[in-house]
Order: sequence, then structure tokens, then C-alpha cells
Amino acid sequence: MTAVAELAQASREAARRIAVVDRARKDAALQAMADALTQATDEVLAANASDVERARAAGTAEALIDRLALTPARITGMVDGLRSLATLPDPIGQVVRGWQLPNGVHIDQVRVPLGVIGIIYEARPNVTADAAGICLKSGNASLLRGSSSAVESNRAIVAALRAGLEATGLPADAIALVEGGHETTDEMMRARGLIDLLIPRGGAGLINAVVSGSLVPVIETGTGNCHLFVDESADQAKAITIILNAKTQRPSVCNALETLLVHESVAAEFLPKAIDALTQAGVTVHGDEASRVIDGRVVPATEDEYDAEYLSLDLALRVVPDLDTALDHIRQHTTGHSETIVTNDVSSQRRFVAEIDAAAVLVNASSRFVDGGEFGFGGEIGISTQKMHARGPMGLSEMTSTKYVITGEGQVRA
Amino acid sequence: MTAVAELAQASREAARRIAVVDRARKDAALQAMADALTQATDEVLAANASDVERARAAGTAEALIDRLALTPARITGMVDGLRSLATLPDPIGQVVRGWQLPNGVHIDQVRVPLGVIGIIYEARPNVTADAAGICLKSGNASLLRGSSSAVESNRAIVAALRAGLEATGLPADAIALVEGGHETTDEMMRARGLIDLLIPRGGAGLINAVVSGSLVPVIETGTGNCHLFVDESADQAKAITIILNAKTQRPSVCNALETLLVHESVAAEFLPKAIDALTQAGVTVHGDEASRVIDGRVVPATEDEYDAEYLSLDLALRVVPDLDTALDHIRQHTTGHSETIVTNDVSSQRRFVAEIDAAAVLVNASSRFVDGGEFGFGGEIGISTQKMHARGPMGLSEMTSTKYVITGEGQVRA
Repeated sequence: MTAVAELAQASREAARRIAVVDRARKDAALQAMADALTQATDEVLAANASDVERARAAGTAEALIDRLALTPARITGMVDGLRSLATLPDPIGQVVRGWQLPNGVHIDQVRVPLGVIGIIYEARPNVTADAAGICLKSGNASLLRGSSSAVESNRAIVAALRAGLEATGLPADAIALVEGGHETTDEMMRARGLIDLLIPRGGAGLINAVVSGSLVPVIETGTGNCHLFVDESADQAKAITIILNAKTQRPSVCNALETLLVHESVAAEFLPKAIDALTQAGVTVHGDEASRVIDGRVVPATEDEYDAEYLSLDLALRVVPDLDTALDHIRQHTTGHSETIVTNDVSSQRRFVAEIDAAAVLVNASSRFVDGGEFGFGGEIGISTQKMHARGPMGLSEMTSTKYVITGEGQVRA
Repeated sequence: MTAVAELAQASREAARRIAVVDRARKDAALQAMADALTQATDEVLAANASDVERARAAGTAEALIDRLALTPARITGMVDGLRSLATLPDPIGQVVRGWQLPNGVHIDQVRVPLGVIGIIYEARPNVTADAAGICLKSGNASLLRGSSSAVESNRAIVAALRAGLEATGLPADAIALVEGGHETTDEMMRARGLIDLLIPRGGAGLINAVVSGSLVPVIETGTGNCHLFVDESADQAKAITIILNAKTQRPSVCNALETLLVHESVAAEFLPKAIDALTQAGVTVHGDEASRVIDGRVVPATEDEYDAEYLSLDLALRVVPDLDTALDHIRQHTTGHSETIVTNDVSSQRRFVAEIDAAAVLVNASSRFVDGGEFGFGGEIGISTQKMHARGPMGLSEMTSTKYVITGEGQVRA
């Protein structure tokens, strides 16, 4: 048995115990975890300083160091996240639907935990507390496989979280850190029967490696090559407001806008205004020939640019002759995350909503709303871009399975 | 591109078209498929006779030939199944939940098709029409990979179904037969991005091979090592009625009873009566030492017998000292299908329902109710024994994904 399998075995035992714990005890544990993390602030910061020092010595880019580095404010953020989970309703035990058969047998479909959730993520130590908290609140044990470059931070955080569990009489093994090199990821992917679900959180490379190698079911999250189509009938001022928000509010996230498609009948009027606003906001617009003829500030886009997420203050642009071409472009390049139309035409709206296959389809609103927090889910473990199990922001309910509870008085099948 | 990938590509195109077809047209297509299958009865029977002749010549067991062989009544069964699907509500477009954000943005979570469903099954030609019908009604295209020993029957059935689609103007490629050897199964398992979901229907060997080799998401169906625990407080007459029904009504199916656990405090009283009834019904009871001391008709059970499905008129039996031991036994041997307690004690009921992790947990009712038809789902593609996406009987709703439709009037994220 591998070291990961042994850990997962302990997680399974813990999962079995926390699956039947009531909400009050889980919420008390979340508060105790928050308390323990607050008390451990100095240890966590010291451990993190050591991780950051190692990363700097290894020549890690500053953007990655910024993700890795913790501050008292970031620790407070983790603590607040745990306390906020304690205020949310418990998804476990919720009756999704219930009905009675003609013979009086009663059937309830009830939410139950999935079991053991493996989270594979990069060097962002705040994910450690967030993911552990969401898993616990939804009755699941978590196996946290963080980056080895954040290992000291993760150790300190997990020690605090486990102390919080123990303080309330819950099994510490409900939260466990997987340490080691890449072989541990492989071991997690082979741990079918021990781990119920893997959620990779990170870049496309990590996600594809897990999806294509895992025997354990995987939820794909995160890649968002998001489009926005400005229809002929669009309110142009609203379109500019939405585009600016979707592109510039937080360019590095998956629900940020990456490609703008503009109906050719309004392009000459719309583009100069839009590019004024985008340029002022520091956005570089990479466009096709037609758009560059209209506005000289547009730099040439290569065909590849329509396929990739920039995750920066860059925006791809294409002028399209009609809605059908916009739909075709999106179908060809979508990652199935969030796609937007700005339109005042009911028929265009209906077609776009019906024909675009994505986790979220937006009409006259910013794709930045596609987020568990904005949806009102409280927590979020990621945004699923796949169609199985859960699609879109994954809150507490999406971290559950169901079982049918069937009660009778001796009924048998005729 | 492999032959399967080419087929799947055509299925994707068809899936895109049928995803947005309204209920009336899908129902008309189901009726046209039923008409075409009725008209093709002679061709289908002739093709099937040829399959059966080949199977006999190859020395196939009679039980398998019985599954392969079609009769006019079985064809009528397929036709009736298609017509019955046409009477069911359309899951597509159903709003699962909808709410409004404080800023007036409206969010609807709406059911949408999964896309292309691959069904991998054994030599049961009736599955061809059933699976194609359920996929079509739920807006999905189906890629049907039947056994090569049923290929002539499947060809004739699929030709009729496709003719029905074409007669109503829907794309014939929404239903396609995958022909060829085992390499086609491998090709389907590698067709990530072309096939959205694989559902293997058959024995444990087939299911495990697909689960452990597939890059396409898989739904595990079917294995049911189902237990029934007779608690100290059980109504013994009801227990016997339920046991007989669960064991003998149709022993070869996954929701049939396989292991009986009896509380030791009632074993001496209960077992002779139960074994009278079981023996009369032709059931051989394989038990542990304690049960054989009580009733000499019990033959010895090996430890292996508690792990396997008999799928025959055989029943494993064990006397247990208490509820905890029963729960432990079930946890150790369950396949997560359907587990039953017969009890009159509220506390035993609560613990059994909470602690047993299975698709269905039954109290004082026969596990034979765990079935899409009995649940009132109309159709059923199989019974999922996994926790992701769908668990338990898979009806039309379980063959869908969702998307969030978000509508605003220019709102952006603060």
C-alpha cells in the first residue's frame, strides 16, 4: 500500500464518521478551526516566510510569489471564510425530492456526502483552508495535495485545522495533507475506491494531466475562454460597461472576458468608442483585419489568440457578419465556461441561450457574475466546465451525492 | 481519425441539432421510430434468427441465447417502450431552480442534454431500441456499441430507428450503431471531447474494464450484492414476504437479494420458517456455522459467497449478534446498490438509514422496488451504483446536464 493509499484509508474512516455528524457539530468544528488558525497566525506566517524564501532562491516569478505569500490579512480572510461556512445551511440530509408510490411505499432522495475528496492545487496556501472547510461542511473528508513549494505553509495551516477538529471531538483525519513529489498525484489518481472525487485546481496543464490519467472521477474546473457578442441591436453603452467589467475587473480569473465579437453592421460606430474605453483601462486589443481597418489601435491577432486565455489586460476581437457566425466562432473556441450576448433582440437572445453549450450563458450582464459567491452559494470549490455531476460554480450542494431512502410496511413488488 | 471517431463526429453534429428540438418533434420521432420498427418486424426477426443460429453454432449457452433471441412479443415490447417515452414529460428546458440577485440579475439553472452518449452492452438487442429512445427523448445522440454476436439484429433495429428519425426530419445520425471488435470499445473510451458519457451495461468484467480504461466519463451501473437484515424487532411474517419477493421474483437482476443477515436473538425462531418458505420456492440457502446449527437445510457458505452476486436461486445467510455487526458486514461487502432492514425499532431504522452508504436504503420494503419503472421514471437506462452525477435508477433527468442562464439589463460586478 502506498503512503497516499494509507492516508486515504484513514480519510475513509474519518469520512464515515463525519458523514453522520449533525450541523451543529460541524459548525462548532469550523469555528474551532478558525480559532486555531487565528492562534497559529505567527507559526503560519513564519512557515510561509520560509516557503517564500525558498521560492525566491529558486528564481520563482513574482506573480507566483504573490500567490504564495501570506499576510495577516490573508490569514484573516481564511479565518473569515471558515466562520462564514458555519453560517450556511447544511446540504446533508436535504430532501431533494420525495414521493409516494401507489402502494404506499415512500421514497425520499436525500443529500449525502461524496466521501473522500482529493484536491490537487498549486502554491496558493489559502486554498488549503478554503477547500478543507467546504469539504467538512458538506460532510466530506479532504485529502489536500498542495504544491511542494508551499509545503511549510500548508503543514502549519493543516495542523491548526486538525487541532480545531480534535477540539470538538471530530476525527483529525477528516483533513489531511498529502506531502511529496509528483508521484503522490499519480497515487491519488490510482486510488479508486479510496478517493471518491478528485478536483484539480490550477492551470490547464495540471487539469489535463489529471483528467487524462485518473481512475478516480475528476471534476474539471477553471479554464475560461469567455466570449462576448455585441449584437446589431445591442445597447452600446451597456455593452461597453459590461465589456470593461468583464475584461478589467480581475483579468487573471477564469470568468474574465477573453474575446469580443462585434456585429459588422454596428462595428464602425461601436468599436472606436469601445476601444477608447478599453485603451484607457490599459487593455491591448488584438483584432482581425476588419477591426483594424476600423480602428488603427487594434493590433493584429493570430488565429491562436482566439483559442487561448490571455488572463491579462489583452482582448481578442473579431468582426462577424451575423449571429450565426458569432455562434460558430464560439462553438469552435469555447471552453464551456461563460458566454455572453449583449442584445435587445428577443430572437437573438433566444437563439444564443438555446444554442450555446456552456456552464453559463449570459444576456446583458457581466460574466464576472459566474462565481459561487456572486451566486449566493457562500463557498465555492471551483467552477466546473464539464457536464457531468456539476456544471458551473460548485458550492456545498455540488459536493454531495444522494441516496434514496425507501420506507414501507412490508410491501413487495407485484 | 478512427472509424469510431468519425461516427462520433457525426453524432456530435446530430446532437447539436436535436439539443434544441422541442418536445412535440421528439415525441413525433419516437412514434415514427415505433412505427418503423413495427413495419420492420419481419426483417428484424430474420436478422435475429441469423444471429441466434451463429450463436448456437458457436456453442453459446442457452441462457445467453435466451437474451439474444427476439420474438414478435419482444419487438412489441420495444415498440411499446418507444411509444411510452413519447408520453413522458421532456426533461430538457426544465428549470431546476431560479433566483434573482440583489441587483436584479436573474439566474435560472436549466436542464440541457449531455450530448453524445455511448452505450456499451452485451447481446441483448432490446437494449438497442430502449437506449436509443431514452437518449433521444433526453435530447442526446446515442452511439450504440452492441455485442458483435447481435450485430445483424442491431443493424436491422437501428435501420428502422434511423428511418423513423428521418421521416420526421430529425438527423438520422442521432442514433448510430458502432460495429466491430473490441478495438471499437477502446476507441470509444479514448474519444474524450467527442463522446460525453459512456454507460457500460453488462457484467462486472465489462464495467470494470470500461471504468479503469476510459478517458470519457463513465457511469457505473448494475452490480448489486444486496443485503437484507432481519432486526430483533422485525415483523417476521413481513420479513419472509419481503425476502421471498426480493430473492425469487427475478433472481438474475441487480436489485435481487443476495445475502440475508439475521439477528441472533430471533434466529432460532425465524430461520426455520424463512427456510421453509425459501426451500419451497426452490432457493438453496448457503449459511455460516451458526445458521447451520439452527437449520440443517442450510448448506455451508464459503467466505467468497458473501462477496459475489449469485444471480440465481441461491442465498447467502449469516447470523449476527447485533446491528453493529450487520452494519459492518454490509459495509465490507456492499456494492452500493440496495440494502434493506426489516425492523420495528425506530432507532435501528435511523441508524441503518444514516450509516449505510448505498444508492438505495430500504426499510420494510422489497429491494425489487429499486427500479426506474417502479420509481415512476418511465424509462431507465440502468441503475448507477456510483456517487457522481447520478446514483440509483437513471431516468430521463439523469441523462441531462444543466446550464445557468443569466439575464440582466447591463449589470456589472461591483
